[in-house]
Amino acid sequence: MAGSPYSIAATGGGVAAPEGFTSAARHCGIKASALDLALLAADAPAAAAGIFTQNFVKAAPVLLDQAHLAATGGRVRAIVVNSGCANACTGDQGTADAAEMAALTGAALGCPAEQVMVCSTGVIGVNLKMDALRTGIPVAAKTLARGQGLEAAKAIMTTDRGPKEHAVVVTTPAGRFTVGGMAKGAGMIEPNMATMLGFLTTDAAVEPALLRRVLVDVARESFNAITIDGDTSTNDSLFVLASGRSGVTIDEASAEALRAGLKEVALELAMAIVRGGEGVTKVVGVRVHGGATEPAARQVARTIANSLLVKTAIHGADPNWGRILAAAGRAGVPFNPREATVHVGDILLFENGLPHDDKAPLAAEYLKGDTIHITVRLGSGTEEVTVWTCDLSAEYVRINGEYRT
Amino acid sequence: MAGSPYSIAATGGGVAAPEGFTSAARHCGIKASALDLALLAADAPAAAAGIFTQNFVKAAPVLLDQAHLAATGGRVRAIVVNSGCANACTGDQGTADAAEMAALTGAALGCPAEQVMVCSTGVIGVNLKMDALRTGIPVAAKTLARGQGLEAAKAIMTTDRGPKEHAVVVTTPAGRFTVGGMAKGAGMIEPNMATMLGFLTTDAAVEPALLRRVLVDVARESFNAITIDGDTSTNDSLFVLASGRSGVTIDEASAEALRAGLKEVALELAMAIVRGGEGVTKVVGVRVHGGATEPAARQVARTIANSLLVKTAIHGADPNWGRILAAAGRAGVPFNPREATVHVGDILLFENGLPHDDKAPLAAEYLKGDTIHITVRLGSGTEEVTVWTCDLSAEYVRINGEYRT
Repeated sequence: MAGSPYSIAATGGGVAAPEGFTSAARHCGIKASALDLALLAADAPAAAAGIFTQNFVKAAPVLLDQAHLAATGGRVRAIVVNSGCANACTGDQGTADAAEMAALTGAALGCPAEQVMVCSTGVIGVNLKMDALRTGIPVAAKTLARGQGLEAAKAIMTTDRGPKEHAVVVTTPAGRFTVGGMAKGAGMIEPNMATMLGFLTTDAAVEPALLRRVLVDVARESFNAITIDGDTSTNDSLFVLASGRSGVTIDEASAEALRAGLKEVALELAMAIVRGGEGVTKVVGVRVHGGATEPAARQVARTIANSLLVKTAIHGADPNWGRILAAAGRAGVPFNPREATVHVGDILLFENGLPHDDKAPLAAEYLKGDTIHITVRLGSGTEEVTVWTCDLSAEYVRINGEYRT
Repeated sequence: MAGSPYSIAATGGGVAAPEGFTSAARHCGIKASALDLALLAADAPAAAAGIFTQNFVKAAPVLLDQAHLAATGGRVRAIVVNSGCANACTGDQGTADAAEMAALTGAALGCPAEQVMVCSTGVIGVNLKMDALRTGIPVAAKTLARGQGLEAAKAIMTTDRGPKEHAVVVTTPAGRFTVGGMAKGAGMIEPNMATMLGFLTTDAAVEPALLRRVLVDVARESFNAITIDGDTSTNDSLFVLASGRSGVTIDEASAEALRAGLKEVALELAMAIVRGGEGVTKVVGVRVHGGATEPAARQVARTIANSLLVKTAIHGADPNWGRILAAAGRAGVPFNPREATVHVGDILLFENGLPHDDKAPLAAEYLKGDTIHITVRLGSGTEEVTVWTCDLSAEYVRINGEYRT
């Protein structure tokens, strides 16, 4: 990063690595045995922003959080998360339960319920066991501490193979600040239990409006740049809290350092979600360049990334440029196939409207790896986008077909 | 059909069942051994219409056919089809080869090349064996006859399990006419070899402009209402030819009888394509009603039909209303989940924002069948759409992953 006004280095810990945050994790009784309650608290109300599922079927906590962020103008004292039950498709009872989770947390911490974000992840169509939460939340609040972020990352898991956390230190001319985070999600592998939740924290000082703009940028290149099967859940949420405790203030001029730090953590967590999907044997980066606009390039990249035929071909290490090109062609974005190129790794398979089939054996060998790069040039402009996905295995089908509601 | 101004009855044969059409089939040498060349001829130039792939990567014959239909104003004497090679992504040589196929057919039949439609299906990125066609087309033209439509239906196959043909007689107050057809396609199971081609014929008399409008309507409810995996190929084409030889003239007032006859044949062929897909164990009709607009209802139906999670759940006989509702919710069409209902068969699984999980065992039993109906009410209007798809099996992944280019 020579010549750059900031540098980034990995550090230990996760969501409670930045100054001003504590966390706790409990087994309160929603799941049969595992950790099922996580609490993340800021020492004082933190600047906050959230991004939520675009699905028109939104779970009760999502609607509550949107209302709370609007009411406080983006000031959050705590986030309470339960796993094992999504509190989605639960009607008026679900709305009341989400509100009670916020009230319980607010009472335990001595802050207004409006300063509490609520997240639930797990089975949908089932009501929360509120008795478990009425007992568990106050206990969790009493055990808040630094250094136990990993336990919180475990408590938010559903079908995840393991906890996902990451943290970095960003050094700028104005000083250092830390960014941490945790996430859960394993594609939509078992969608009744597989919301994507992401929690980012920083001890930089930043106003909520700028924080929100930065979060939207970061999400576009991390959590919103991954696609397992094109499905999105009722509960998907991403939050960022900024405590300001590092003493480093971020403004428009220095926002790039914060954006880069958050992106580093968010992309690491997002890639862990892709790699952790059941049945996943390969992670696939689909880069589309030469797009007339960024949305056009993104649409092509997403269509390729979600093509069953592309995903199964990659699983079988088949250098099938025809499937990649055909997926690009049906994305609804006009381009001239004679201007297009298709690369697998750095192996050129299609150019000037014609294949290079002599390169197929080389590409087949490359596709045996576990991280695959596909590149498509559209030849329509200068915009480029990268989207991350995974291969599609028979194991995926087995898991999703055998799961019973 | 009591009280209706027309009635429809199945009859034998396929594309050459209507008066005024003959067909031929040959093995000319593009494939190693099977039939690979089909010829469909009208005794005199027939009114014609065509619908082609929306993919921006279009094969050479598709571009040729579009130009020929425009040049003749929709008058076609013959359609020549080869299987085994798609003549797609073949550059200038491919363009020249498609033109030569039309010229060879025109010379053999004594008509302008512009009155010939050309179709190719098979491997992409490989040039046609023109020597085989230079010999085969004149021979095929000499063997044109009635009563051998089934052979033509076999000659257009690639990965299809079997030939697909159907024919009906439509009785109207003005007299009877016949509609026939053949098709090939097996989803995009092996997309380098799996174009969807459809050929409809009728001996009704109808002007090309009206015929085209009717074909668009028919395609919307048949070939364009099926979706295996959301992929569309470089070569997909659907044609209709009308010889007029029945003496029954179709105008705006009587167009419904023609539309119904063509739809009957087209839907039968389209369903055969769905059912014939490799790894398919169930055919699934997704009906969305209560849509604000037809495109909105269609978008929701297609999103449900293409959801991997819905398709794998159906494969495993899992009555997972949550996956269906979540897919509806991410289709980009606003609706109120509290107004929505989800049925599997006639079993109500979701209503008033809440599940009826007591019905799950009944629904699981229903899902063991091989034809499944899913119904989603949006509660936003009065428009409805049905889309047809199939389940997603581990077999699908195995076939598509093991295929090698």
